[in-house]
Amino acid sequence: MTRKDGRGNFTFTVRNKACIANPGAQDHLRCMEKTPISAGKLWLVGAGPGDPDLLTLRAARLLESADLVVHDGLVGEGVLALIPTHVERISVAKQRSRHTMKQELINELLVRETLAGKQVVRLKGGDPFIFGRGGEELDAARKSGVAVEVVPGITAAAGCAAQAGLPLTHREDASAVSFVAGQCKDLTDQDWSGLAGHGRTLVIYMGLAAATAIADKLIADGVSPDLPVAVIERGTTADARVLRTLLTDLGDLVAREEVKSPALIIVGAVAARADALDCLGAPALAAAKREFSCDF
Amino acid sequence: MTRKDGRGNFTFTVRNKACIANPGAQDHLRCMEKTPISAGKLWLVGAGPGDPDLLTLRAARLLESADLVVHDGLVGEGVLALIPTHVERISVAKQRSRHTMKQELINELLVRETLAGKQVVRLKGGDPFIFGRGGEELDAARKSGVAVEVVPGITAAAGCAAQAGLPLTHREDASAVSFVAGQCKDLTDQDWSGLAGHGRTLVIYMGLAAATAIADKLIADGVSPDLPVAVIERGTTADARVLRTLLTDLGDLVAREEVKSPALIIVGAVAARADALDCLGAPALAAAKREFSCDF
Repeated sequence: MTRKDGRGNFTFTVRNKACIANPGAQDHLRCMEKTPISAGKLWLVGAGPGDPDLLTLRAARLLESADLVVHDGLVGEGVLALIPTHVERISVAKQRSRHTMKQELINELLVRETLAGKQVVRLKGGDPFIFGRGGEELDAARKSGVAVEVVPGITAAAGCAAQAGLPLTHREDASAVSFVAGQCKDLTDQDWSGLAGHGRTLVIYMGLAAATAIADKLIADGVSPDLPVAVIERGTTADARVLRTLLTDLGDLVAREEVKSPALIIVGAVAARADALDCLGAPALAAAKREFSCDF
Repeated sequence: MTRKDGRGNFTFTVRNKACIANPGAQDHLRCMEKTPISAGKLWLVGAGPGDPDLLTLRAARLLESADLVVHDGLVGEGVLALIPTHVERISVAKQRSRHTMKQELINELLVRETLAGKQVVRLKGGDPFIFGRGGEELDAARKSGVAVEVVPGITAAAGCAAQAGLPLTHREDASAVSFVAGQCKDLTDQDWSGLAGHGRTLVIYMGLAAATAIADKLIADGVSPDLPVAVIERGTTADARVLRTLLTDLGDLVAREEVKSPALIIVGAVAARADALDCLGAPALAAAKREFSCDF
């Protein structure tokens, strides 16, 4: 964040350097290495979508050298198994109903442990900056002056799409891809108009509980009820299921097939390319509705 | 792809099993392991955004066990250095003006070498399914019947955002993030309306050459000229530069700072959170325009 003082100086941070600029002065820009206030460091690390093979090399190394790993509930068991036994471990799995308070407590924990001199890895499902609240933890760290670095992870959309053989962009089908979060609580507040439809792929994270409302919302926004949709359950794991239908059937599919969380919903023409089990909705199978089962 | 024959049978593929379904028959669904037509296998592998530490564990292992690596020009030198010397290597760096022809030749090469029994790694910058043409290579492999698997990679947006401390989503600023490609050729054909603006983050890949046209296009679509923009040059490398301005100044910034490819453009309120050098445009510095230099 850039700040201005009374003498016309702007202060800001660039690549761990503290900078001061004064457009009116000759020596208008000076930067210096920040003095760390403790030997500790905080790493906001993406754990990827579940499969431990999809960790980055950097993330895997950081897990080995950490003093403390603070992880949430979306991090796969296989990833947690890579943490050496001597490394301290704290789970901060969030409860849905108490998001805000919990996040503040997590921020405090991260800052406190880092200030105590530890190498702290905050391990988050997927990517820290895509629906991961990494931005809030980064803010807290910056405000407290602790050294912090962000390590990206494979986001669920990329991991699930790869497994399902479903290209998120394709020259024939989609030149734009958008990610949104579909928790019930926020759904009515969110403006998704224009994100799905011709030439576009829409990926909905955490949308399972609101699947029917999501389909209704998109159709009300003008999206064709016949647009293909893929639902990827437990993506990137050996138990993954890839189901496909049409937008209008999304809510029914989720109920009928008893799809469990975590699951990703992908809406758009590209969904028709997935290596998926067609569940009633696909045009060629529409006539077979109610006679064709997805179980196997 | 689902296909229907004259007897009412639908055939399709699920998780490497060939399936046949007939909604009218009692034994309505049967699946069997596909018989591979050669011992070779094709892996479409994301190399990530440049930094070799951002390769996935699976990608790193595949490079070591491959017979042949076919890579494009966007794969970083550090990643290529991880390929053992005994592994055959072919560069298929594309020329901008001959995309279509080239892609077909690449598809043929991949299929031919895999049919010859090799373990072929097709190494692509970023993620294979986000502006990576992985879908086309997957189609070619499926049509030829060769075994194929897709391994996701860290896409440039996630890698650059992590380095710049720029959350792509943030509870206060953006609940949706979209990726588009900004090559000149396709720009006029593309409908980006609604992808940038209030509550949304828009990431533009390969948009450097058309930066001015991109800003004009967005402003013509109703996006505020004062929306923050970050430009990340050589993201995830040690030479990275993160520059920030307002949308209206985007084209000038790119010219003034002589930003070189590869560079990523991120448009939205979250850009104001980046650990960036403010280049004229940010509100607090707007008054200093033309007196404040980005060089350092």
